[in-house]
Amino acid sequence: MSFNTFGHIFRVTTWGESHGPALGCTVDGVPPGIALTEADIQPWLDRRKPGQNKFTTQRQEADQVRILSGVFEGMTTGTPIQLMIENTDQRSKDYGDIAQAFRPGHADITYHQKYGHRDYRGGGRSSARETAARVAAGGVARAVLARLAPAVRISGFMVQMGAKGIDRTRFDETQIDQNPFWCPDATAAIEWAGYLDELRLSHNSVGAVIEVTATGVPAGLGAPLYAKLDSDLASGMMSINAVKAVEIGDGMGVAALTGVDNADEIRMGPDGPEFLSNHAGGILGGISTGQPVICRFAVKPTSSILTPRRTIDTTGAERDLITKGRHDPCVGIRAVPVGEAMMACTLLDHLLLDRGHTGGLRGKIG
Amino acid sequence: MSFNTFGHIFRVTTWGESHGPALGCTVDGVPPGIALTEADIQPWLDRRKPGQNKFTTQRQEADQVRILSGVFEGMTTGTPIQLMIENTDQRSKDYGDIAQAFRPGHADITYHQKYGHRDYRGGGRSSARETAARVAAGGVARAVLARLAPAVRISGFMVQMGAKGIDRTRFDETQIDQNPFWCPDATAAIEWAGYLDELRLSHNSVGAVIEVTATGVPAGLGAPLYAKLDSDLASGMMSINAVKAVEIGDGMGVAALTGVDNADEIRMGPDGPEFLSNHAGGILGGISTGQPVICRFAVKPTSSILTPRRTIDTTGAERDLITKGRHDPCVGIRAVPVGEAMMACTLLDHLLLDRGHTGGLRGKIG
Amino acid sequence: MSFNTFGHIFRVTTWGESHGPALGCTVDGVPPGIALTEADIQPWLDRRKPGQNKFTTQRQEADQVRILSGVFEGMTTGTPIQLMIENTDQRSKDYGDIAQAFRPGHADITYHQKYGHRDYRGGGRSSARETAARVAAGGVARAVLARLAPAVRISGFMVQMGAKGIDRTRFDETQIDQNPFWCPDATAAIEWAGYLDELRLSHNSVGAVIEVTATGVPAGLGAPLYAKLDSDLASGMMSINAVKAVEIGDGMGVAALTGVDNADEIRMGPDGPEFLSNHAGGILGGISTGQPVICRFAVKPTSSILTPRRTIDTTGAERDLITKGRHDPCVGIRAVPVGEAMMACTLLDHLLLDRGHTGGLRGKIG
Amino acid sequence: MSFNTFGHIFRVTTWGESHGPALGCTVDGVPPGIALTEADIQPWLDRRKPGQNKFTTQRQEADQVRILSGVFEGMTTGTPIQLMIENTDQRSKDYGDIAQAFRPGHADITYHQKYGHRDYRGGGRSSARETAARVAAGGVARAVLARLAPAVRISGFMVQMGAKGIDRTRFDETQIDQNPFWCPDATAAIEWAGYLDELRLSHNSVGAVIEVTATGVPAGLGAPLYAKLDSDLASGMMSINAVKAVEIGDGMGVAALTGVDNADEIRMGPDGPEFLSNHAGGILGGISTGQPVICRFAVKPTSSILTPRRTIDTTGAERDLITKGRHDPCVGIRAVPVGEAMMACTLLDHLLLDRGHTGGLRGKIG
Repeated sequence: MSFNTFGHIFRVTTWGESHGPALGCTVDGVPPGIALTEADIQPWLDRRKPGQNKFTTQRQEADQVRILSGVFEGMTTGTPIQLMIENTDQRSKDYGDIAQAFRPGHADITYHQKYGHRDYRGGGRSSARETAARVAAGGVARAVLARLAPAVRISGFMVQMGAKGIDRTRFDETQIDQNPFWCPDATAAIEWAGYLDELRLSHNSVGAVIEVTATGVPAGLGAPLYAKLDSDLASGMMSINAVKAVEIGDGMGVAALTGVDNADEIRMGPDGPEFLSNHAGGILGGISTGQPVICRFAVKPTSSILTPRRTIDTTGAERDLITKGRHDPCVGIRAVPVGEAMMACTLLDHLLLDRGHTGGLRGKIG
Repeated sequence: MSFNTFGHIFRVTTWGESHGPALGCTVDGVPPGIALTEADIQPWLDRRKPGQNKFTTQRQEADQVRILSGVFEGMTTGTPIQLMIENTDQRSKDYGDIAQAFRPGHADITYHQKYGHRDYRGGGRSSARETAARVAAGGVARAVLARLAPAVRISGFMVQMGAKGIDRTRFDETQIDQNPFWCPDATAAIEWAGYLDELRLSHNSVGAVIEVTATGVPAGLGAPLYAKLDSDLASGMMSINAVKAVEIGDGMGVAALTGVDNADEIRMGPDGPEFLSNHAGGILGGISTGQPVICRFAVKPTSSILTPRRTIDTTGAERDLITKGRHDPCVGIRAVPVGEAMMACTLLDHLLLDRGHTGGLRGKIG
Repeated sequence: MSFNTFGHIFRVTTWGESHGPALGCTVDGVPPGIALTEADIQPWLDRRKPGQNKFTTQRQEADQVRILSGVFEGMTTGTPIQLMIENTDQRSKDYGDIAQAFRPGHADITYHQKYGHRDYRGGGRSSARETAARVAAGGVARAVLARLAPAVRISGFMVQMGAKGIDRTRFDETQIDQNPFWCPDATAAIEWAGYLDELRLSHNSVGAVIEVTATGVPAGLGAPLYAKLDSDLASGMMSINAVKAVEIGDGMGVAALTGVDNADEIRMGPDGPEFLSNHAGGILGGISTGQPVICRFAVKPTSSILTPRRTIDTTGAERDLITKGRHDPCVGIRAVPVGEAMMACTLLDHLLLDRGHTGGLRGKIG
Repeated sequence: MSFNTFGHIFRVTTWGESHGPALGCTVDGVPPGIALTEADIQPWLDRRKPGQNKFTTQRQEADQVRILSGVFEGMTTGTPIQLMIENTDQRSKDYGDIAQAFRPGHADITYHQKYGHRDYRGGGRSSARETAARVAAGGVARAVLARLAPAVRISGFMVQMGAKGIDRTRFDETQIDQNPFWCPDATAAIEWAGYLDELRLSHNSVGAVIEVTATGVPAGLGAPLYAKLDSDLASGMMSINAVKAVEIGDGMGVAALTGVDNADEIRMGPDGPEFLSNHAGGILGGISTGQPVICRFAVKPTSSILTPRRTIDTTGAERDLITKGRHDPCVGIRAVPVGEAMMACTLLDHLLLDRGHTGGLRGKIG
């Protein structure tokens, strides 16, 4: 990964600022001959789109994606695919008062220190709006996966909001799309709604934990030692705005396990090896085992809040700042489709890398 | 990062297997004119060296590093530095019985599935022995940092073993080198010693959490969006053997915070901006703030234990396997110097990348 | 370089097809704080623009560039700059008859074999139209060079058309912009005009040699061994459509020289070392010497001609094909600004890489 | 390509100086399951080895390669292969007098200017001795090609020494190994021997042109636009010491051709398309056509000669310098196996890249 590009063979280069005329990405390394139209990408963008309920920013963006290259007569050509999304509802005036002052928790101060000159409007390049480009790229990745690894299923959902986690015994996949939080536990979703309403009205915000799983992933993906499947997922998820931690499988919880408990014992099933547990989150030695790949990440609370916080401006003057604008009280909500997109892109990238390097070889067992 | 190389400008390519004749790395992108001898690197290797007490593997390796290129008359020349460490105490016979059987929790099964043919002796390429090369590279990085960013101080230590965390009120940096666990809390170290002894005798092992901090890091390091300082740290730490989670700053804990609490408010100090807290772990928008960079990672319990675990072999036959050999009951201990090395390499890499890209520009405040 | 991206720090990713809605590029790694508007880029595109005289394709493209990101209030921000050029005069019907047949000398057959599915209209991705994106990126590179290395002057011109070379004794830089061929020899330009007219009317085309020089290049640019300044120039120039050879300095001519003649002897001048000749073309060991960097490349004759040539189609049927459409009789003409752009991008990239790696160190002489 | 690494998937990182203890390379991205021992690599090194006759340097190096990793029980494991060659005959005293003075035509002055501090012994890193590592890597590439693309045959030979080219009508492949020049024209070889003897005795040297061809290359290799097969070959060959030009197919000669003459017309043969000529050198649009890939490069005369040349030293003092030591009067001779190695590495790299990206898809014809 380098600057604004991620991936090894399936390489995504994103561009654009929150309040510029448009944003988008170049998706390179897409295999040829894959059916692809804007209609394959748009639904994923719609999932991420702001303004869908009172718990996400009220900015109204159509987030309409256009394919400008790389597809001919509805099929990929193997050449770079340019995806563009025009910004239509930038209210730059909302941001005028933070041109000089640094919003605490935001990248304003670090961009200023690193670059000297920055687009302060809506956070410019550091805005979570950039993730629309990732989601679009994820749509391309999914279309390719559907062809090359059709068993792969990717699912993202929220497992914790604030201190309140879901009850895993109530996990119901069909609930995920039924509430504004992508929550698989209907009871928790109701609690969260009340909690978040309260926070919003008290000019506050809260963090969350997102889980993204992938089933049907073939064994053998991941390029040790420095493009391990888990190190690439860690890099990808950590690069999402406001993410401060990434876990694979049992994650931080492995510290408390003993070797006896942590062992994912193996038995032989009808179709090959079967693991009796999945503490490893589907990855051993940086390579997929064939079990579900399980990745979680923590998203910090939205830093833009209406409660005044102490800060300084570029002159060094101290001020108390509230951040007006249209913000998500729990930015973790909209991180769900972004996490799914990063998972899709990473899995496809490793599928292509593996077929290049090993020829997709699979050592026999039995 | 790609396959066996990490870094953008300061690029480290490692090679070697646990039981081959030698292992090492090529360190490319080192600035010229930096004083460097083997004596600058050896102490870091000695910190990581096995066999130093009863809590680490009893394998006896001198881990003597040789510089084969890139240094002339005690000074770097800007050309690639080859570091080689010969393996001297490989007892391959210990591993003969696992040539075909897959040790649960190890990469045996995934290497088999991905590559078909693998060096099973001691885990071959997937062995933690590879981390000696990282530590050697870290020694080079530290020598360069000492010249280019002399204020940087990197410190790694263990903050949790099993379920038992340190008491932060007892944090004493001088204790870190005084116990076998790199533990900054003398009381916890004593408890851990008893606990680990017990585990060892009962043929078990345990996980741990390591923290690596860096102070004196200049503001402005990190290349958003896909070579953010935190995403590179996440990738680097996750690539260490047995690591299952990476946290920056408050890490997974941010989920439970509200925006009001999480805000790292800013005031103006005599030398520039001062933050009133550091939930962000010294990184905002992927760029260093100048505060301490704080990174934690969880290491799973050693998978090689003397308690039998169920598994299969390459023929698909089911077996119960104990893993003989000389293993660490808490592999997290020896991960401490490795985490420090990854921190040193990543910081230096970003220092060089930043002076290339922005010229090391720092936007003025005040 | 990988797929559709070139450069190490200053990285350009191009996208777009000849007859798609638009083409463009993402220019990443641009230092912040550089004054840049579309007006800095447009003049270079205008130089390359088709339809300017009877010797270039009559396709009428405004080639109007738009900056979509990375610039704020007229200054670069260090974030990726997206440049887009809309295609306005695609006459796809001209190309209908070559949907299945492979034009000899074109990439039609290789794209078919590699990708299976391709955009045949105007050559799709393999069209020289892609070079508009490079020229736009070159405009950005020049703006940065003007700030960071203001002494650099880049000049491209044609030194041979068909078998007819220029007379170096008549070299007059001011002539370059005075004729349709960027020819520094006014007499040769007149001859070429007649010759090319003749070829055009006889439905033929011809090759050319282009020279691109850069003066004022600081010593020390180039990253041996595999990102040497000359190997990067070779890669960059060879990647231009229809280029079949690249020379540095005396190029192929060095074969005929003896060591005594080839030596660029050195004397001490008032401002440092002075070379008494420049057979090396300003590059020794892959690193710039401070002398003029001299690069030449040969462009093959336009393959699209109205004279029938034997070929086959995708069914394997044999046909005689003439290539209708609006083509340059000497495609080398429009390669001049493209070569200049590749020179500008490569020099800037190495300037940034060098200041990252060595800190722009220059060993003292005298 | 970046610094000391070339390749995309098959990545070679070289290290080592002329007079250091050893040199070598890490070969990453090698597919697993390929039979490989030192005996597969050594013959290629023996071809390049110095001191084999009076026309190459009299330095005596065994150039014995050791495989230190990545191979287990005679078969590759997919992990990085470390190849090491010890330097045994460094006579550093020969170079003492050039510690401060810059040999004209060498990289002494540019390394000094770029790096400040350099290993002057025998040119240090800039010595052609580094090419031993490339040849070793080429041996690995050939072993893999033998398995994955067994039809590929690579052949390098000298086609011009000084102003004297071979007579293509006397081209006889079996002659190549029969003379010290890898010359396919027995008559020319005799002439060259006399000519070179004369030059050597008069303390002079001369340049050469090398041609490397590859037959049996499958159609479809090459990743346009910036990892074209020809741009990667150009980069690879130009990175060889003393190379100043690279040609594909007709090379510089295409300038003098008309479109009618240059067209490689196509007819249908029993096994697919057949080209009636090969001006393109087997590459169209950066992608292999299935025809022989033809690449030529010009090597400048050895700069180290016993005839005094004017130069300066690091103090700026002017001197007349002769370069003692053991030098090749025509360094082009030993560039032949190096060119072959770069061809082998590049072809394999693109084979792997293509099977990753397109899955090795070949669009049907007929």
